Amino acid sequence: MSDFQIEIIGLIAATFTTIAFVPQFLKIWKKNDASGVSISMYVIMLIGICIWFCYGCLIGSVAVITANVVSGILQIFIIALALIHRNKN
Amino acid sequence: MSDFQIEIIGLIAATFTTIAFVPQFLKIWKKNDASGVSISMYVIMLIGICIWFCYGCLIGSVAVITANVVSGILQIFIIALALIHRNKN
Repeated sequence: MSDFQIEIIGLIAATFTTIAFVPQFLKIWKKNDASGVSISMYVIMLIGICIWFCYGCLIGSVAVITANVVSGILQIFIIALALIHRNKN
Repeated sequence: MSDFQIEIIGLIAATFTTIAFVPQFLKIWKKNDASGVSISMYVIMLIGICIWFCYGCLIGSVAVITANVVSGILQIFIIALALIHRNKN
């Protein structure tokens, strides 16, 4: 399998683990309630994502870098939305 | 930086993104309620994790393989717990 094909597999994986956060984001948005969501989870994950990003740069993996940049942005939004709703309630 | 040091960074990242799911798991467990959690999120993520696992094997990254095996198991538990509580309510 060529490096290019392997990177494509990584990017498909990245697409799944990144879009996975979209339903949770929409759920908080629509229900206007984030009480069931663990903010600690997203904060710990965000730290992990930053380290994965460094790892991706070090091994030169486009898939790992892309996945973690996009997931990181989505998670910042989920944390912000969860905090806003928690302060409201 | 040696390959070994890079793998250590990957494993630290893996530890964070894996333990991130523990607070969510405990939250569902303690509150006996999973209505705020998006099951679709965890199902999509589980598919992604399986593909990441293949990617890890292809690039020979111990960090990527370990992270995805442990996360995958945790996510199966979260999905099962969420489904059990959803059927109860």
